[in-house]
Amino acid sequence: MDPLTTFDGRSLEAVRRDLHKYAEAGWKEFRTSALLAAELDDLGYEVSLGEATVDPDERMGVPPADELAAAKARAREEGAPEAYLDEMGDVTGVVATREFGDGPVVGLRTDIDALERQEAADDGHRPAAEGFASVHPGEMHACGHDAHAAIGLGVARAFADGGFDGTLKLFFQSAEEGGRGGKPMAASGHLDDIDHLFAVHVGLGEPAGTIVSSYDAPLSNAKLDITFTGEPSHAGGEPHAGRNALQAATAAIENLYGIARHGDGATRINVGQVSADNAQNVICEEATMRVEVRGETHDLSEYMLGRVRDVVDGAATMHDVEYETGLYGKTTTFRNDESMVETVEAAAAATDGVDETVSKEFGGSEDASYLVRRVQERGGTAVYLGVGASNPSGHHTAYFDIDEAAIDLGVDVIVEAIARSA
Amino acid sequence: MDPLTTFDGRSLEAVRRDLHKYAEAGWKEFRTSALLAAELDDLGYEVSLGEATVDPDERMGVPPADELAAAKARAREEGAPEAYLDEMGDVTGVVATREFGDGPVVGLRTDIDALERQEAADDGHRPAAEGFASVHPGEMHACGHDAHAAIGLGVARAFADGGFDGTLKLFFQSAEEGGRGGKPMAASGHLDDIDHLFAVHVGLGEPAGTIVSSYDAPLSNAKLDITFTGEPSHAGGEPHAGRNALQAATAAIENLYGIARHGDGATRINVGQVSADNAQNVICEEATMRVEVRGETHDLSEYMLGRVRDVVDGAATMHDVEYETGLYGKTTTFRNDESMVETVEAAAAATDGVDETVSKEFGGSEDASYLVRRVQERGGTAVYLGVGASNPSGHHTAYFDIDEAAIDLGVDVIVEAIARSA
Amino acid sequence: MDPLTTFDGRSLEAVRRDLHKYAEAGWKEFRTSALLAAELDDLGYEVSLGEATVDPDERMGVPPADELAAAKARAREEGAPEAYLDEMGDVTGVVATREFGDGPVVGLRTDIDALERQEAADDGHRPAAEGFASVHPGEMHACGHDAHAAIGLGVARAFADGGFDGTLKLFFQSAEEGGRGGKPMAASGHLDDIDHLFAVHVGLGEPAGTIVSSYDAPLSNAKLDITFTGEPSHAGGEPHAGRNALQAATAAIENLYGIARHGDGATRINVGQVSADNAQNVICEEATMRVEVRGETHDLSEYMLGRVRDVVDGAATMHDVEYETGLYGKTTTFRNDESMVETVEAAAAATDGVDETVSKEFGGSEDASYLVRRVQERGGTAVYLGVGASNPSGHHTAYFDIDEAAIDLGVDVIVEAIARSA
Amino acid sequence: MDPLTTFDGRSLEAVRRDLHKYAEAGWKEFRTSALLAAELDDLGYEVSLGEATVDPDERMGVPPADELAAAKARAREEGAPEAYLDEMGDVTGVVATREFGDGPVVGLRTDIDALERQEAADDGHRPAAEGFASVHPGEMHACGHDAHAAIGLGVARAFADGGFDGTLKLFFQSAEEGGRGGKPMAASGHLDDIDHLFAVHVGLGEPAGTIVSSYDAPLSNAKLDITFTGEPSHAGGEPHAGRNALQAATAAIENLYGIARHGDGATRINVGQVSADNAQNVICEEATMRVEVRGETHDLSEYMLGRVRDVVDGAATMHDVEYETGLYGKTTTFRNDESMVETVEAAAAATDGVDETVSKEFGGSEDASYLVRRVQERGGTAVYLGVGASNPSGHHTAYFDIDEAAIDLGVDVIVEAIARSA
Repeated sequence: MDPLTTFDGRSLEAVRRDLHKYAEAGWKEFRTSALLAAELDDLGYEVSLGEATVDPDERMGVPPADELAAAKARAREEGAPEAYLDEMGDVTGVVATREFGDGPVVGLRTDIDALERQEAADDGHRPAAEGFASVHPGEMHACGHDAHAAIGLGVARAFADGGFDGTLKLFFQSAEEGGRGGKPMAASGHLDDIDHLFAVHVGLGEPAGTIVSSYDAPLSNAKLDITFTGEPSHAGGEPHAGRNALQAATAAIENLYGIARHGDGATRINVGQVSADNAQNVICEEATMRVEVRGETHDLSEYMLGRVRDVVDGAATMHDVEYETGLYGKTTTFRNDESMVETVEAAAAATDGVDETVSKEFGGSEDASYLVRRVQERGGTAVYLGVGASNPSGHHTAYFDIDEAAIDLGVDVIVEAIARSA
Repeated sequence: MDPLTTFDGRSLEAVRRDLHKYAEAGWKEFRTSALLAAELDDLGYEVSLGEATVDPDERMGVPPADELAAAKARAREEGAPEAYLDEMGDVTGVVATREFGDGPVVGLRTDIDALERQEAADDGHRPAAEGFASVHPGEMHACGHDAHAAIGLGVARAFADGGFDGTLKLFFQSAEEGGRGGKPMAASGHLDDIDHLFAVHVGLGEPAGTIVSSYDAPLSNAKLDITFTGEPSHAGGEPHAGRNALQAATAAIENLYGIARHGDGATRINVGQVSADNAQNVICEEATMRVEVRGETHDLSEYMLGRVRDVVDGAATMHDVEYETGLYGKTTTFRNDESMVETVEAAAAATDGVDETVSKEFGGSEDASYLVRRVQERGGTAVYLGVGASNPSGHHTAYFDIDEAAIDLGVDVIVEAIARSA
Repeated sequence: MDPLTTFDGRSLEAVRRDLHKYAEAGWKEFRTSALLAAELDDLGYEVSLGEATVDPDERMGVPPADELAAAKARAREEGAPEAYLDEMGDVTGVVATREFGDGPVVGLRTDIDALERQEAADDGHRPAAEGFASVHPGEMHACGHDAHAAIGLGVARAFADGGFDGTLKLFFQSAEEGGRGGKPMAASGHLDDIDHLFAVHVGLGEPAGTIVSSYDAPLSNAKLDITFTGEPSHAGGEPHAGRNALQAATAAIENLYGIARHGDGATRINVGQVSADNAQNVICEEATMRVEVRGETHDLSEYMLGRVRDVVDGAATMHDVEYETGLYGKTTTFRNDESMVETVEAAAAATDGVDETVSKEFGGSEDASYLVRRVQERGGTAVYLGVGASNPSGHHTAYFDIDEAAIDLGVDVIVEAIARSA
Repeated sequence: MDPLTTFDGRSLEAVRRDLHKYAEAGWKEFRTSALLAAELDDLGYEVSLGEATVDPDERMGVPPADELAAAKARAREEGAPEAYLDEMGDVTGVVATREFGDGPVVGLRTDIDALERQEAADDGHRPAAEGFASVHPGEMHACGHDAHAAIGLGVARAFADGGFDGTLKLFFQSAEEGGRGGKPMAASGHLDDIDHLFAVHVGLGEPAGTIVSSYDAPLSNAKLDITFTGEPSHAGGEPHAGRNALQAATAAIENLYGIARHGDGATRINVGQVSADNAQNVICEEATMRVEVRGETHDLSEYMLGRVRDVVDGAATMHDVEYETGLYGKTTTFRNDESMVETVEAAAAATDGVDETVSKEFGGSEDASYLVRRVQERGGTAVYLGVGASNPSGHHTAYFDIDEAAIDLGVDVIVEAIARSA
């Protein structure tokens, strides 16, 4: 299975498998974006690419420039159409727009990034057995965004010859993992005229044939990267001459876990990655860590974030070191509009192959929340819906895969829902 | 043994026992100062009292005003001469000066405060058995400063009729315990014309009959009182609404003990008293602690003190609480002048009852260091000497006592040494 | 207002004021118990006293023997009837039983202990203005248990001449504050034949005239006293020779606050009192602290308690010190039986002076929970009800007081409810 | 400069440059050992190799088996003589013995391992400019052990035809960096018949032409690798279900830095590498760290090591995780025998090119200490001497290099000293 150099004429299943095999993690979706843009262009959509799809100041968790350059070079080698690669600059993502009539502006948001994890290689894993497991070490579509991209493309194809009396906008969003790409796309301006927005996720434990008309109550979440920088010295001869970044980091970690619970609802704090890399006889010069906070509400996660900042600031003062914090990613809460939920239910009821329609709590975090809120703040309505997909292993695991029947069924339901929104 | 209302005509042993029984802790030596001042005045010395003996801005570890008032009222009740009490204001201590001739200005520094500790009450303890154990609960002469005061008075008496061709200055210093009174007396101006200064300590493990011609290598030391102040809240209902002073204190303590050792020499850190006093269901509003740092040199203790300040400041920031730090006390290092050591050796050799003369390391901390340094900075010379006293139990313990023979012997040696300094 | 030497013939208001003035904190209610027992005896009830009212092995948070002895001596001085004092031994509390007929066994639980806090003394506080503020420093009825005791006595009086066809049991429980007396009384056996149990609390923010037919959803709670014991040493000379109890305590505190939140519901942790009392130059020998955990459910507070034990054990190991933990108190959750709630509602509806009947969440913790559970485990039913009391200041504050009209109204409603239970 | 396949016929400078270019870190010195063994064999020495040179139970800080296998395979590819590679098994190091006469058994210990660090590649660094910088990424002779190996070989050559009336033993020791190879070689038995032992180091800040007749007062040191292992869980959904290895590690680190200073002398503690590598939303499963302690004496470093073990054990208990500790390396103190120091001084005085002979404090740590002690315990004498080498940049830095004149001069002095030992 060589990399496709065009999606035109290929089934959505083939598109999904190609994206799965050449998985691109957040902010590295150069090939994905270029191939999608090429067909959307052919289909008659007006295409915005890369830098034009986000507010660049709002981008979070962007890998270093050399990693981005390597990812883009890889996309080029794997046959991504050059013209689109050139156009997108260093930023990924696509917004495709087409005006079919005077009706409302309806949007569909799908995310397109892979996860940073290694895919299973044994024959018990269908993508491996059938030759479309990721060939990019440490990058894998373990959350179904390959199917999301295919669904978005399917919807574009479905309306290629009209059938909807309004304007259709398709958002292929970068870097959903970690909550890095939603906020900048929401701030791009492209959402500002949307009347009705659909966002979609496959899988999440539901079987193929089930439609989730709304996912509710996502958690608000923020991820922070923190680096403490001190000064090294010889731990034997001059222990006093160093400024110990590790002592600052450990003081911070101990006190981060000690942030007071909140009386108004559930909060969470966790420190994931920690790294300090010195010889045993050198006072630590630099220590880095990655922190995540959550809250049942936006206010609760903001409370946690505020307390994290105090703790980190104080820890640096304690040990006379400098620090930098960077927001790695952020999501917020949202609520679905009842009218949109009803539209999805009606569309599902009208679609062959839908066995059941349910409504569920989300339980996780999603940066579609920023797009949903943007639309609602400007008077539009929105819904976050699900398409069951019988995945054999949990999301984010090495054996994640989906029942590909979900792709066409997802397209059908969404097309129907969009049509009903006009 | 009722409290004496005058020392005149009493033996030095009787004076010491009276001071022992009516022990006054640091900055509370109202009765001690008044009684000493009264006799010194009678003996023809010009007497400076209380406020006139210190730079008030330099006073450290001063008890609250109500405690001072109570101590002064107690002195009044116990028969301290009113006129002197009135004159000294809220500050204790005496400087007595008398010019006998044109020769050098020679000083003697003795400290007069008791310790804050309870004295043993059983008959195995001679002061209890013979009725002169402290009647002031929690105050006890457990370091021999009662004997120091008696020695100072003895020297004053010895020169009452001359016998020394110069000016004699006797410094009865308050609040040596904790290192609180030396710095302010050193800054008073009274030391500035001293040519030769003697300071004396009894006991310290040496038997009566032994003279220590110089104590060397004291440690530099600083004591800090720290109070963190946050805000209380109900730990069940609103744990987030408090600002937890105890979390700040514990973060501070953990990191204080973690202050880096210094490559240039020995340092010390300790947290003594810690107190937070809340119901279990209240987020802590206030936490107090007492910290001590030491260093082999002044620079090393200053290094520690600087690091303590960073840690405390950072801990407060971490937990969004306020804090105050107060210097409870401070000592520095000093060196003895060889010429003065020789004077002491010669005086000891010329004094009946002296069995042995030795030179020793001090091992502890002393705020006479500030007086010694003040004299030396202005061109004078100084020595810190010792008088053995066969104490049955260690300094600062509940059973501390001394062989009172040390008092007269101490007077003899010092009188001889002063005479030889002219 | 001299202390009463008998309650007979006194109004419930006078009884309450007498108990308020001679407030006795948990496990010290000798006078309260003796006076209640004397009248209950006179009224014809069979009286169990002190040791006979609890399983002594289950008692928690018992003050030291000398404190108990002093409290009992004080009760004697204040005129508590000697015979009952003698009978109760070192334990307080009363269970009074009387069989009126063959009907069900109905219980009423009231708690009788004061809080450990100082009462306000100014005229703005009615008990002070009218001469019945507590004369026992640091002990105060700031939670209305004086009124509870009076209500219990009022119910006993109401049935003195019958009017109820069954057996009545009145539980005057010690040491509710801190959750120390409920568990041992529940384990005494006295609850084992109860068919219907009422427990009552006054105030809690409701005005006089309001009856709370059930308080629901109390938190499960445990309080732990922890003492770390190391070895002292001189912080300057031999810092290594100590075993630092304070370092153990601070390591524990930091990590206690860091105990992971639980995914199944709300948990709480707090450290209230902390004390380490050393000179600054002594490595800390002993440090004590008081910890409280809570959980939305019994399992959640047990999770917290288990984690506390790990943390404390590990902290002691870290610093090579010993430790002891003692359960200071414990409460659990409970649910009210619907049939009992309906009985209270009906009784309230039938009682003059009741303006409104409501049902509420409790929000706090209560060791009546153990009595409720004991009854329910053996097939009985129970309810925890409230009597509004227009208190001018919050519970547990220095200005707490109640509208005494609540006492008679409480008696009326409970008498009616008991009568309806037969 | 292709890798040499034999040292025979090459100058010591060429040998040193070859070893420098194909630098092998501790326990990976397969090529170094094989090439040395081959020539020593040719020169008539009886050669012990690898496993036969150590007590395998005493080896510390041994890399994983796959790393060792890769290092050995690399040695094979780079032309190391196969027969010697085969003979040495998985262990490196050489002991070469030759009996020339009936005189004493004299030993020379040189160490042969490179450091784990990247060498500078720019032309300002002579090894890079002249083509002999290390071609093994992350391995570099930055401490002069390449020169030590060359000196050892030079001494072997010097005595190839006799000139010494005794037995010569040459110890080419593995893994000195980190103190990993000295203890196992000392326990091998090969040292047990040594009468006089020389150990040598080049550089250390002295210029070429200077001989250090003895390095004194090395620090005792121990390095520990610690891994905490808990259990992961989702930080949002089930934070309580994890067992947090990172919390254990941070509790340990805070308290490690807080280990009490020792009254008997200087101690040191440092945590170098720390690593925990989880996604932000996963409770940490594994955290690793590397710790180093030092002491002015063996007892002081043992005190620190004992306290480290307590802290780590307690931290694991606190957070209910498992842990493993492994000794990464260890050194001890030693003293030089005066007779041996005099021998070196005499040899230096008799050697052309020696400008100056000095004696110095060592300041660092050395596992030659174990060999020195072994010899002395069995009645022999030993000295640790230095050969100045005008290094342009500090030891262990990326720009370290030496004046190669030191090699021949070192050989001359040592040959003279050995000859004088017979």
